[in-house]
Amino acid sequence: MDVRAAVAFEAGKPLEVTTVQLDGPREGEVLVEIKATGICHTDEFTLSGADPEGLFPAILGHEGAGVVVDVGPGVKSVRKGDHVIPLYTPECRECPSCLSRKTNLCTAIRSTQGQGLMPDGTSRFSIEGRTLHHYMGTSTFANYTVLPEIAVARIREDAPFDKVCYIGCGVTTGVGAVINTARVEPGAKAVVFGLGGIGLNVIQGLRLVGADMIIGVDINNSKKAWGERFGMTHFVNPREIEGDIVPHLVNMTKTKADQIGGADYTFDCTGNVTVMRQALEACHRGWGQSIVIGVAPSGAEIATRPFQLVTGRVWKGTAFGGARGRTDVPRIVDWYMDGKIEIDPMITHTMPLSDINRGFDLMHAGESIRSVVVY
Amino acid sequence: MDVRAAVAFEAGKPLEVTTVQLDGPREGEVLVEIKATGICHTDEFTLSGADPEGLFPAILGHEGAGVVVDVGPGVKSVRKGDHVIPLYTPECRECPSCLSRKTNLCTAIRSTQGQGLMPDGTSRFSIEGRTLHHYMGTSTFANYTVLPEIAVARIREDAPFDKVCYIGCGVTTGVGAVINTARVEPGAKAVVFGLGGIGLNVIQGLRLVGADMIIGVDINNSKKAWGERFGMTHFVNPREIEGDIVPHLVNMTKTKADQIGGADYTFDCTGNVTVMRQALEACHRGWGQSIVIGVAPSGAEIATRPFQLVTGRVWKGTAFGGARGRTDVPRIVDWYMDGKIEIDPMITHTMPLSDINRGFDLMHAGESIRSVVVY
Repeated sequence: MDVRAAVAFEAGKPLEVTTVQLDGPREGEVLVEIKATGICHTDEFTLSGADPEGLFPAILGHEGAGVVVDVGPGVKSVRKGDHVIPLYTPECRECPSCLSRKTNLCTAIRSTQGQGLMPDGTSRFSIEGRTLHHYMGTSTFANYTVLPEIAVARIREDAPFDKVCYIGCGVTTGVGAVINTARVEPGAKAVVFGLGGIGLNVIQGLRLVGADMIIGVDINNSKKAWGERFGMTHFVNPREIEGDIVPHLVNMTKTKADQIGGADYTFDCTGNVTVMRQALEACHRGWGQSIVIGVAPSGAEIATRPFQLVTGRVWKGTAFGGARGRTDVPRIVDWYMDGKIEIDPMITHTMPLSDINRGFDLMHAGESIRSVVVY
Repeated sequence: MDVRAAVAFEAGKPLEVTTVQLDGPREGEVLVEIKATGICHTDEFTLSGADPEGLFPAILGHEGAGVVVDVGPGVKSVRKGDHVIPLYTPECRECPSCLSRKTNLCTAIRSTQGQGLMPDGTSRFSIEGRTLHHYMGTSTFANYTVLPEIAVARIREDAPFDKVCYIGCGVTTGVGAVINTARVEPGAKAVVFGLGGIGLNVIQGLRLVGADMIIGVDINNSKKAWGERFGMTHFVNPREIEGDIVPHLVNMTKTKADQIGGADYTFDCTGNVTVMRQALEACHRGWGQSIVIGVAPSGAEIATRPFQLVTGRVWKGTAFGGARGRTDVPRIVDWYMDGKIEIDPMITHTMPLSDINRGFDLMHAGESIRSVVVY
């Protein structure tokens, strides 16, 4: 079938909105009509050419929501008409990772997904006979896409596509980092580095679990109001303080009873390896945990003195907020519908597919928190 | 009183065994007659001058066992005649760290201990009127020493001093890293880097908790028999394999069902930051945890790509095996007395105080696992 898509033909070039061809779903696959998709920094990372594993030409996009319109043979868990969120981290419930109870990083289709292909090793997308790569197994920058059954989360039908698409990546990554990876407890003190589309979701995750002190760090003062909107209690602009950010944060978290100071949990949402180090070292001696969420440039390395770990700090990371997509995403949709978390104010811009490159421009300019393409 | 001690007058020089003066215990302190003390790499690290926080002149030693012979005013938890193990990590049960339930790193006397002094800011040791520093709050290279009450663990009276002194550091550090810090579960696959006095105790800790695969890594083939003696199931000499150690270990841990491979837990007992990185990267994607135990040279840094963390590996460290000294050390003494852990074969050499420098020589030559001075 012919579908409308924004195609990434080449690294560093704008997307081209055009008509491409999509084959129907095969064994274990579903055809989804995408109703809305967010534009995320990860799409930008790949489009820019900075991602060493980026493949071209491809149909990017990984933060969508839509409706199942056809299913291939053997599909059992969803059917036509189901509302779904595509999952770039699938959940097969059968691989060693899914069965480990210790990780959300399902490996069932990892190798083909990394090659931009469906699990059978082929692509469903093409243009004039030329193969187009899938992207993150989702390719939501097309109004129809094919996905493995294990890579869709069925959600309630009253949830608005143009909002809950954000749960396909940013919301779940931020909120999930707090509740699944760090497992933050009520009363905790936390620091969030980088108040973009992920950082704000970390902040609202911290509010959700009852953190006492939620310090936001950003070099852009306009982010202060944004952070406060979602529960941030303190703001620090590292360029406007005296001296180093680490002792500054440690001092902020000291109390009369605790003169050591340091955060119980810190979150890097910047992708900057220097910031990642600061985030670790701003943790409390003995138990502070730092969670890396941001994606660093290719080849960049984090470093610290091992003494930081020996004295009890823990360095972790998270992907998709540690969430198991089919199990956890529907719950997060419920939380949104119940008002436990917010999404609407973070979606600062919407646009038709034809304007998708404007979404990338807004991101570059730092003017948007999230732009959403509505088909 | 006059006591016999091995004094570290200067970095890089042998200890001098001589008579020094010891003041009696003050408020909250106890006088302990040391019956035996191990010689640990940490003593060597300080004596060599490599420890930037090392103070001279000092009385080193932190792995002792002995008998309380006097108590100062206000001491309630121990009395004359009690058998005790000195604790370089005290347990006050009142500071924010002790009350956090998250760490063993009691901070009650941290600052004075770091300055080589008792909690009141003075030293009990002197020689001909010249002050000698305490070391790690313990100074077990003297046949009598003064300790804060919160820095002694009372142990059963039938435990032999010349064996359980090792629980004052090496045994607890190794076994504790497994049970307190990593919390290894039965069936786990683990890798231990460095089969010295700590690594062998990690191995027997892994055996204790029922690990399935216990891989020991050392560049000295003579350590193979040592590792096997305490439960090691596989041995790797990195100098005798083709290619890099990380993929080698990952391949060893693959199974038919799990073609990703990697260890559930790894432990660095080398203090080498390159090895620490290998230990992290040999962990299983999604959940592998790497525990830094070794003490790195001053200024050395660990590094890795943040992708290692984002894909689920966790980097941690441990000090004194995460053990709360007064609570956990007596239990480990029981385990030794019950035969659940072994100590005797690890104590390869004993000697009188007058021969203490020979203990350091044996360590340098790699001929000892542990040398113990028996007073």
